[in-house]
Amino acid sequence: MTFTPTEYLPYDFANRRHIGPSPTEMAEMLKVVGAKDLEALIDDTLPQKIRQKAPLEFGKAMSESELLDHMRVTAGKNKVLTSLIGQGYHGTVTPPAIQRNIFENPAWYTAYTPYQPEISQGRLEALLNFQTMVSDLTGLEIANASLLDEATACAEAMTMAQRVGKSKATAFFVDENCHPQNISVMKTRAQPLGIDIIIGNPDDLDASTVFGAIFQYPGTYGHLRDFTAQIDQLHEYKAIGIISADPLSLTLLKEPGAMGADIAVGTTQRFGVPVGYGGPHAAYMATKASYARNMPGRIVGVSIDSQGNRAYRLSLQTREQHIRREKATSNVCTAQALLAVMAGFYAVFHGPDGLKGIAQSIHSKTVLLAKGLQEAGFGIEPEAFFDTITVEVGPLQSAMMKSAVDEGINLRAVGETKIGITLDERTRPEEIVSVWRAFGITDRDADQAPEYQLPDDLVRTSDYLTHPVFHMNRAETEMMRYMRRLADRDLALDRAMIPLGSCTMKLNSAAEMMPVSWREFALLHPFCPKDQAAGYAQMIEDLSAKLCDVTGYDAISMQPNSGAQGEYAGLLSIAAYHRANGDDQRNICLIPMSAHGTNPASAQMVGWKVVPVLSAANGDIDYEDFKAKVELHKDNLAGCMITYPSTHGVFEETVIDVCNIVHEAGGQVYIDGANMNAMVGLSRPGDLGGDVSHLNLHKTFCIPHGGGGPGMGPIGVKEHLIKHLPGDPNTGEGAVSAAPYGSPSLLPISWAYCLMMGGDGLTQATRVAILNANYIAKRLEGSFEILYKGPSGRVAHECIIDTRPFAESANVTVDDIAKRLSDCGFHAPTMSWPVSGTLMVEPTESETKAELDRFCDAMLGIRAEIRAIEEGTMDAANNPLKNAPHTMEDLVRDWDRPYSRETGCFPAGSFRVDKYWPPVNRVDNVWGDRNLNCTCPPMDDYVEAAE
Amino acid sequence: MTFTPTEYLPYDFANRRHIGPSPTEMAEMLKVVGAKDLEALIDDTLPQKIRQKAPLEFGKAMSESELLDHMRVTAGKNKVLTSLIGQGYHGTVTPPAIQRNIFENPAWYTAYTPYQPEISQGRLEALLNFQTMVSDLTGLEIANASLLDEATACAEAMTMAQRVGKSKATAFFVDENCHPQNISVMKTRAQPLGIDIIIGNPDDLDASTVFGAIFQYPGTYGHLRDFTAQIDQLHEYKAIGIISADPLSLTLLKEPGAMGADIAVGTTQRFGVPVGYGGPHAAYMATKASYARNMPGRIVGVSIDSQGNRAYRLSLQTREQHIRREKATSNVCTAQALLAVMAGFYAVFHGPDGLKGIAQSIHSKTVLLAKGLQEAGFGIEPEAFFDTITVEVGPLQSAMMKSAVDEGINLRAVGETKIGITLDERTRPEEIVSVWRAFGITDRDADQAPEYQLPDDLVRTSDYLTHPVFHMNRAETEMMRYMRRLADRDLALDRAMIPLGSCTMKLNSAAEMMPVSWREFALLHPFCPKDQAAGYAQMIEDLSAKLCDVTGYDAISMQPNSGAQGEYAGLLSIAAYHRANGDDQRNICLIPMSAHGTNPASAQMVGWKVVPVLSAANGDIDYEDFKAKVELHKDNLAGCMITYPSTHGVFEETVIDVCNIVHEAGGQVYIDGANMNAMVGLSRPGDLGGDVSHLNLHKTFCIPHGGGGPGMGPIGVKEHLIKHLPGDPNTGEGAVSAAPYGSPSLLPISWAYCLMMGGDGLTQATRVAILNANYIAKRLEGSFEILYKGPSGRVAHECIIDTRPFAESANVTVDDIAKRLSDCGFHAPTMSWPVSGTLMVEPTESETKAELDRFCDAMLGIRAEIRAIEEGTMDAANNPLKNAPHTMEDLVRDWDRPYSRETGCFPAGSFRVDKYWPPVNRVDNVWGDRNLNCTCPPMDDYVEAAE
Repeated sequence: MTFTPTEYLPYDFANRRHIGPSPTEMAEMLKVVGAKDLEALIDDTLPQKIRQKAPLEFGKAMSESELLDHMRVTAGKNKVLTSLIGQGYHGTVTPPAIQRNIFENPAWYTAYTPYQPEISQGRLEALLNFQTMVSDLTGLEIANASLLDEATACAEAMTMAQRVGKSKATAFFVDENCHPQNISVMKTRAQPLGIDIIIGNPDDLDASTVFGAIFQYPGTYGHLRDFTAQIDQLHEYKAIGIISADPLSLTLLKEPGAMGADIAVGTTQRFGVPVGYGGPHAAYMATKASYARNMPGRIVGVSIDSQGNRAYRLSLQTREQHIRREKATSNVCTAQALLAVMAGFYAVFHGPDGLKGIAQSIHSKTVLLAKGLQEAGFGIEPEAFFDTITVEVGPLQSAMMKSAVDEGINLRAVGETKIGITLDERTRPEEIVSVWRAFGITDRDADQAPEYQLPDDLVRTSDYLTHPVFHMNRAETEMMRYMRRLADRDLALDRAMIPLGSCTMKLNSAAEMMPVSWREFALLHPFCPKDQAAGYAQMIEDLSAKLCDVTGYDAISMQPNSGAQGEYAGLLSIAAYHRANGDDQRNICLIPMSAHGTNPASAQMVGWKVVPVLSAANGDIDYEDFKAKVELHKDNLAGCMITYPSTHGVFEETVIDVCNIVHEAGGQVYIDGANMNAMVGLSRPGDLGGDVSHLNLHKTFCIPHGGGGPGMGPIGVKEHLIKHLPGDPNTGEGAVSAAPYGSPSLLPISWAYCLMMGGDGLTQATRVAILNANYIAKRLEGSFEILYKGPSGRVAHECIIDTRPFAESANVTVDDIAKRLSDCGFHAPTMSWPVSGTLMVEPTESETKAELDRFCDAMLGIRAEIRAIEEGTMDAANNPLKNAPHTMEDLVRDWDRPYSRETGCFPAGSFRVDKYWPPVNRVDNVWGDRNLNCTCPPMDDYVEAAE
Repeated sequence: MTFTPTEYLPYDFANRRHIGPSPTEMAEMLKVVGAKDLEALIDDTLPQKIRQKAPLEFGKAMSESELLDHMRVTAGKNKVLTSLIGQGYHGTVTPPAIQRNIFENPAWYTAYTPYQPEISQGRLEALLNFQTMVSDLTGLEIANASLLDEATACAEAMTMAQRVGKSKATAFFVDENCHPQNISVMKTRAQPLGIDIIIGNPDDLDASTVFGAIFQYPGTYGHLRDFTAQIDQLHEYKAIGIISADPLSLTLLKEPGAMGADIAVGTTQRFGVPVGYGGPHAAYMATKASYARNMPGRIVGVSIDSQGNRAYRLSLQTREQHIRREKATSNVCTAQALLAVMAGFYAVFHGPDGLKGIAQSIHSKTVLLAKGLQEAGFGIEPEAFFDTITVEVGPLQSAMMKSAVDEGINLRAVGETKIGITLDERTRPEEIVSVWRAFGITDRDADQAPEYQLPDDLVRTSDYLTHPVFHMNRAETEMMRYMRRLADRDLALDRAMIPLGSCTMKLNSAAEMMPVSWREFALLHPFCPKDQAAGYAQMIEDLSAKLCDVTGYDAISMQPNSGAQGEYAGLLSIAAYHRANGDDQRNICLIPMSAHGTNPASAQMVGWKVVPVLSAANGDIDYEDFKAKVELHKDNLAGCMITYPSTHGVFEETVIDVCNIVHEAGGQVYIDGANMNAMVGLSRPGDLGGDVSHLNLHKTFCIPHGGGGPGMGPIGVKEHLIKHLPGDPNTGEGAVSAAPYGSPSLLPISWAYCLMMGGDGLTQATRVAILNANYIAKRLEGSFEILYKGPSGRVAHECIIDTRPFAESANVTVDDIAKRLSDCGFHAPTMSWPVSGTLMVEPTESETKAELDRFCDAMLGIRAEIRAIEEGTMDAANNPLKNAPHTMEDLVRDWDRPYSRETGCFPAGSFRVDKYWPPVNRVDNVWGDRNLNCTCPPMDDYVEAAE
């Protein structure tokens, strides 16, 4: 018999797995929004003139299983050798319990940045552990919750030194023993800010000429030195001393704080985070308490909740760029939260004894290695080292490097005649023997008692990691449960929609995530020989080509490892272009008032002056104001930064004209890619007139948020800017990140997404993202005012809900509503941005109709509660909104509220059996900033079992 | 400078990760138990005469990272070809979301069997989905929650047919088209029970001569036939018709129910569970409602809780061997819960449309393949097929098989002149082309429109998977959240100790688990050429050698895939030994009254008569009764089954004498390995006089319980029994399981455990398991009576807490205490076994002192509550014990109880912020058995969001 095949395609990842609403659900939703079909809705929403001409064409979309096969073949083209290259990247052992329970656990990797502290207590605690670890190891009072990489951390430290130091000098001293990529990125950062970089031997430092200095510890060639004298000298001239230190070495070595350092930076990569061909890993920064308010990056702190219980939160947010804009301490936004959590857990897992044991073992292996080489007659430097030595080999350098590769080992070429070797946690005796063999030594074995030879005056004498969390029982059972308890305190995508405007919290599918754990992607050193990274090269080339197709640009740089880094890199390319044209005077940047705070902060970093452009009443750029400002500044116009669709979620029809006007005035156009999820397959920034854009791969292209990082912010540019893209941080000019491709071990995620969606799937995702937003807007219409619709009454991929009227009518703030949504089991939407007193909702294409309905039910339930207050049937001060979020403890204790327990704890939209309980009541932000404490609180908090 | 290295060994898996108590904690605990040191405690506990002579020596223990490297090298010796061998094992695509969120998630894999329904609602729902799926696909009314493999399911169906059928015949008809391994296992099972197996063509069935018949559908060589006529004929003679069916084919083909079958069995392996060189996978059984009480295996059913809300539970437990002992329906105990959950989720993931699409695609690929072969002149059978064809190749068989291997494809040799080919979900067009090439066809491509050719009268006409759960939105976001919600309803090892006596719920470490997911272990067909499984061979050889060292036996068979299977296989080997000696009359088996119910049930399965031996007051074997019974039965004594240490947790000094006496009487000794965790490294059953033992690798050797399976029950035997070990199910005699090595893809877990522990570590684990049990016993002493201590006042690795006095003193039952422990966040200990009214606690070595203390605090808190009842300060009927467990709903609704919410919900030991809430109140077992419903309840239960 012949029968008709079912129409259902079981392996259709795009339409059945990634996109939330089913075809039936979409039909129902289209009815609600009042559109004939999806195409009609899109036609209503995106003006024809901005639509792209040809559909996206990537060939046939792969199934999950085809994708994994394809990934395996690609991964197989990377060769995993043992890299003893060092230079800030080290072999490390990721404890399997951490890999499985954190890195591969959606409860951790799908979480958002902990801006809503009540539903983020778990990862806040984990990040506080990280900060405490950094603070202890560096001997400085306060640490942040990670930076992007060591090189940018150095650059951030440099600019911070200028802010906090009292010296008027404009030069900055850089230890010649800094890692090349650190020097490269600091140079890039210094140039537009007018900072002169002086590179030299620390012994030659003239502190009177600089506002600060940075030293590498241990040095890139292995040197250990005490920088106390240099820092004393700097302090005499009111300049700032910075040490970039390997935190593992600090378990044995005198810490930066003990040398008087004002700031310490570095990377925690070797705390259990695979090298990953360069990233992502968590860099750190620590400083003196008095400089806390000048430190960039997010800082977790301790506060109290409305019941007086201890609660964690992000401290001092007023420093950050979403508040201070061009006056922000930096444009740093995305951190490396997931990797910082891992590094923190690595310290908990090993404790101070374990870390010290690891460091001792690495050091004694290095001593052994050096001895073998010395006894064979090789000249070794330095005399005092921790894990790195440099061997003089004369003309044999390349022969010996090759011979090492034949042994399966990558070494580092230093100059023309030397070879650098850095050992690590993974190094086994056999590998030391292999290195010896590569140097022609064939008669030694590595079976010797450990020896240590650190200089007496550099041996650490202070304690570290004394907090009980670093002394908890280290049985895997206990560690696993601790990780689970923390995960359970948080609300992430694995439990509920996170409808954050502009953050595009979409599905991070298991198939996309799996390859990231594979050793062929995880274990490559960023500076390994190119022929060992052919799989990476293929992936980067293909993904770049696809992103060019998506954006209409001509080339992509994968180097920026966050969205803000992308902005900065893009603006640098524009600045370099003007310079190359002799237009050095072009330093004015027009930015709409509604722009994300990173825009002005990034413009400031390239040395530009920000001129704000007004917004019209409908949220669009005020076209007249814009034209007037272009006219006014046309001789000095560097460029203009716009977001498309606008941060108000509207596809402005004027965008092409705006670009033309800027170009006519000699400026360049930066189109912020934050809202790219509303455009993919339908409209291309490159076609609209953009010269450069960044893409948030961690928004539009499925890299998970990781609780506040990692991110990837590659930039696309037009032909004329290609030559101004960031250079290789190891060898070139103008690098913005430590590694050539930023955080390349994340790229399999975005590549997998493109391959499994295909051009059609990506386009359909955009359409459905717009449908989902319009569906919410429609369901809430009448109860809430939806701001900033387009001319046809449609919103784009997000919608802004105005809650300002309720302040007056019911004394209900946007905060009250946000916290009440926690009671409903939702992460709050973006609050008060781009318009104060509003909520911006972006459901993404990955949410199903049922979840959208649950959210709408919750919002309508909240509206009903507001109405009850307005009508006087609910108390204006003591009501579920003001008391939100409600905790389990509220249920247990006496209930003296004018509404029921049921009303308080189970509002509309909340699950019943599967109710999520915030572990704390509303957190007091002001208290926390006034009583700043950013390391782990005392033990009593950890005793949880009831007496 | 030279400094002393830290004494802490960061990579010491055994002492720092696997074993719970730290050295400091152990010192404190030893003080409490009153032992000088650990060795002294062991000397108190284990009589010198039973101690092993030499310490376990496995060489240096590996670190986690060394282990993973070693595993990778071993895995690399397995060659992953595409196996189109079929024969009940099929390529399948595990949806990545299921792999990551179920298979690799400790919340699922560390769970225990859902005997405590209140804290198991998540996996009970998942298993109910599985049952509903099986019931729907087979068209039969009731299904169980999985069996071990298809072959044992066939054997179980055969014996069930004998139980339920009214025919007096003693023969059983087996379709010659059954898979060879099914026939092999049924033969093994039939022999001791006196069942004659008649193998033949279904057309030749004479129903008057048999009590039942089994047919394979599709047949092992691909045939599709309608068995309605045969079953009608069987029914005429009151015999039972069984169909062993591929459930995927049933999405297209007329279902067994529609053919009148009384029982259907089969495997759900191809529902997303990797082949794994033979297992584990979930077999299924479905039958008519009227036969429910005769079905073996666990059955999930629907009942109500004390508030009248719907709640899931295990139904009809009175059928099971822990109740009915030798009268049990079978010895089946362990199921394949984790794999059944995966298969159930696979059905939810794809839904009926998706499954049908997959089946259609497989069929159309097979049509295409067959056409190519036919057009090239090959003779193909059968005419009507689903996914399997058999090709006549004459003398070219081995050349073509080899040529296929060169193409990367394994085919099946059928007879001397035929080749079998079975396609599956993974088969790609390129592979069809490869098969053609192997057959010399080089001019075809596989790019053709799908065609179907199923016989009209075999096309399925009925609906299936109509329940809403199989029609839920299949977006990965939704699926992931559903899996998380179910996981969160349950309490597993990732949150708390599961102190189950005799079940050894120890750490299942991440490093042990990881290799199981690797394709080199996951994708091998059990009947692939041996040279493709060299990695498996090496692992099995080394693990066997280590297990021989541990047990004192001379050889190991890995075939039994559960503990009860091991018992059965062990007894079979004894029976065969007697037979070989001409001692056919030996059919008496002595079993202590206290033995686990599987012991008598297994003895019954080998056709033996069970003679119970009394227990003495102290729980030991009643030595006099034992001697008397040996004397009485000495001419017919087959053997004796003992557990060591005894099920009362005592190392009986008489064990060696007991063994000697049995041997002198001509019997053999089976030592049950259930309590092996109290012996490893200290005492060996083989030295004590055992002839055979099974080991529960899922207890002592770290295979996780998976919520009720998988398990592995290999047996060790002395030299003289080696030749009676189970044979190869594909080619040999006396097989007990479908695959030669049972469930070999689990073996990396146990192997990893041995390798990372080393002999010292394994021995230390045993010592600490005993310390942990004695610590609990000591802390509870005075408040509870601890039964059955050894002569020196020590317990072994578990302790029995007597709760019987409280029935009278306070009307508190063991059930009340167990449920109250759920309020404290604990899984209850083993209830009423081996002694009614007691709790048996086995903490294992993996629990830390803090967790043991939390448990003791909980128990002491409960004792205080009992005392309050005894003293009249707490109501005897309305108290926290009777009302346990308390749910969140209890807190929300009006509280009219004579104790506070706080007292009810936060008893001693419970976490506060991280409180675990049972989702239902106490489940009504009687109601559930009276109102039997074992498929998914209607939709309303799934609507969770509050209105």
